[in-house]
Amino acid sequence: MSFKTVVRSFRTLSYVGSYKKIRDRPYKFYCAALIGTGFVAYSQMKRNRAEMKEIIQLKNYMAEPITPLAQLEKNQDDMKTQMELLIMRIQAEFCRALEKEEDEAWEDEKTVDDFDFDSDMFVTSPEAKFKVDRWTRNEGGGGITCVLQDGRVFEKAGVNISVVSGKLPPAAVQQMRSRGKKLESAELPFFACGVSAVIHPRNPMVPTIHFNYRYFEVRDKDGVQWWFGGGTDLTPYYLNEDDAVHFHLTLKHACDSHDPTYYPRFKKWCDDYFTIPHRGERRGVGGIFFDDIDSPSKEEAFEFVTSCAEAVVPSYIPLVQKHKDDAYGYHERQWQLLRRGRYVEFNLVYDRGTKFGLHTPEARYESILMSLPLNAKWEYMHEPKENSPEEKLMKVLKEPRDWLKLERATA
Amino acid sequence: MSFKTVVRSFRTLSYVGSYKKIRDRPYKFYCAALIGTGFVAYSQMKRNRAEMKEIIQLKNYMAEPITPLAQLEKNQDDMKTQMELLIMRIQAEFCRALEKEEDEAWEDEKTVDDFDFDSDMFVTSPEAKFKVDRWTRNEGGGGITCVLQDGRVFEKAGVNISVVSGKLPPAAVQQMRSRGKKLESAELPFFACGVSAVIHPRNPMVPTIHFNYRYFEVRDKDGVQWWFGGGTDLTPYYLNEDDAVHFHLTLKHACDSHDPTYYPRFKKWCDDYFTIPHRGERRGVGGIFFDDIDSPSKEEAFEFVTSCAEAVVPSYIPLVQKHKDDAYGYHERQWQLLRRGRYVEFNLVYDRGTKFGLHTPEARYESILMSLPLNAKWEYMHEPKENSPEEKLMKVLKEPRDWLKLERATA
Repeated sequence: MSFKTVVRSFRTLSYVGSYKKIRDRPYKFYCAALIGTGFVAYSQMKRNRAEMKEIIQLKNYMAEPITPLAQLEKNQDDMKTQMELLIMRIQAEFCRALEKEEDEAWEDEKTVDDFDFDSDMFVTSPEAKFKVDRWTRNEGGGGITCVLQDGRVFEKAGVNISVVSGKLPPAAVQQMRSRGKKLESAELPFFACGVSAVIHPRNPMVPTIHFNYRYFEVRDKDGVQWWFGGGTDLTPYYLNEDDAVHFHLTLKHACDSHDPTYYPRFKKWCDDYFTIPHRGERRGVGGIFFDDIDSPSKEEAFEFVTSCAEAVVPSYIPLVQKHKDDAYGYHERQWQLLRRGRYVEFNLVYDRGTKFGLHTPEARYESILMSLPLNAKWEYMHEPKENSPEEKLMKVLKEPRDWLKLERATA
Repeated sequence: MSFKTVVRSFRTLSYVGSYKKIRDRPYKFYCAALIGTGFVAYSQMKRNRAEMKEIIQLKNYMAEPITPLAQLEKNQDDMKTQMELLIMRIQAEFCRALEKEEDEAWEDEKTVDDFDFDSDMFVTSPEAKFKVDRWTRNEGGGGITCVLQDGRVFEKAGVNISVVSGKLPPAAVQQMRSRGKKLESAELPFFACGVSAVIHPRNPMVPTIHFNYRYFEVRDKDGVQWWFGGGTDLTPYYLNEDDAVHFHLTLKHACDSHDPTYYPRFKKWCDDYFTIPHRGERRGVGGIFFDDIDSPSKEEAFEFVTSCAEAVVPSYIPLVQKHKDDAYGYHERQWQLLRRGRYVEFNLVYDRGTKFGLHTPEARYESILMSLPLNAKWEYMHEPKENSPEEKLMKVLKEPRDWLKLERATA
């Protein structure tokens, strides 16, 4: 644990370092961070407790951890702690990668009018930064919701983590039992934490991405049961086959180092899950999706989830960079809005997470619904024209493709 | 039955007559209709069969009835027939009333450029007419869906009727049993028909209206059980208290002639039903809502539902006329779009009819989802400004008012 922690801390820091321009943080902070890391690297003899403190105090995250520092320090070998630190890091890395894109779009646009002569610097665009809300629940735990809205590159981007605990109502336990969990039929104590994000870009040539990685523990008379779940999936408005292949390949690489059967199984699971049955279409071109992973061991399952979560930035950011300046017009924008209507349909009617969230008393609905697009449209009986790019997308949504086999066949 | 039928046929015809400008139908048709009615009025000695044929052949409706003519003629005393004719009449009357508003808006706008010298008349605006789709189901029955989209006055208006029959799956029977229906637990033959409409106007000062009136029959080993359901409710974007009072008063009058306890009971039922629990707010300023009405008698319940359905036009059209030219700007439009997002949330997450429809195999999803607005918006953490007109609306949505008591108190 201690070496891994140091490596992870370095990885996070080097990531932060390269984006330091982006966040409005004093330069001193980064010096402190680097010194801090140096300190961590050179003190492996020191107790784990000291290292953990260092990592948490580095404040690379979007906000203070939800679980009190003392508790994280005390339980640093606990999976609950490891997972909370992972989701905080993934949230921060992803938010910064998105802000970097906003920042570059702003760089291209700014003029002398944006220069503030009093402070001798360019005014920062307020839409180009994530709004960070740290919230707590009365029943236990809370979350950190980061939303960037009405940006130049992203119309709406939401990246949320939550760390919650309490008592599962019998109805929720019953639902888990019906999914095959062997649990006592009673009100049971639980812990759940996860990161989830939905990014709706402005340019219709840039796809929407969604990902979610989570860890669950529930205790009954026979002890604690745990499992991981998650997935990453892509929803393009216009089909670019190279993009779909790049996306799937990145996810496959993340899966393959853990188990070669994972990618094909979880790819199919994703196609099956992100379905809009009443329309007979998929939400997008898929990705991976899995639920209830509780093997081969807790550590190995965690390492797998870590690989998947770390694959999000390399699977998606290159697609943003490639298409964010593509030409488009009124027609493409209207199609994007119609497809966003379908996204709303899936999320509100079928998505288990959204439904579970909205029916949970005292749920923070703003965090659950941050996944909805800024704008959406419903037209009665809209049909794409024959042989149009819109129809090309619809064909893939009606019949999912095996993207990577296709690539090999045409290579 | 025969005198009532004649009166109803006259009523429908005089209605149609006053709007004859609106629909693109040859003048001859109206002469034929009037002669037809005269024929009906003067031949009460003739057999009911002949009268029924006359009424149906008048073609005042948006499309041919779903149930074959011969069957309607044969079962003209059956409630199934009476209800099908009622919903067809209500659909046509309401669609024509809305088209009249579109037509007047078009009259105000047209210029010499819109004059077609070849046909010596003004070109009709294609957006100002309902698109009529008559559809059938493999399992039995079908519907008529009328949608007007992107009009001058109405951004999206959907008025649908459906007449369906078949076998209720045990799960649906179970759901009815859980609502208190005493039914055998098996697959049971059923008949259902109803009219439903949602009108989303363009001007944010004009409220959205929804109504739905339906009749249900299910047969088990003990015989046929029947009931009516329905309601009309108003969703303003900006609160106008006079409008809310006018709307509720019209509904109250429709209720009071049948049972003085109806309005207060169904007003409360409406407030309770059209709730968005996760936001702790109502969808709008309410109206009436009732389910499972099976007393005092089938005929009396039908007469009550008829009164309610006939109250839709007088409750709503005056509000459209009053506000359709009100001034508004970007700010009001954005608020309207946000509130439409809430409308989508209610319909997709909570509305029983929408959920039931979308989960029915082979359902015509385009007819179910015609209720969704053309455009909607979701902003993270949007809060109306203090003492703004938007906040004034929110207060009423969080705490429903007793509109008619208020009117008496201030009179």
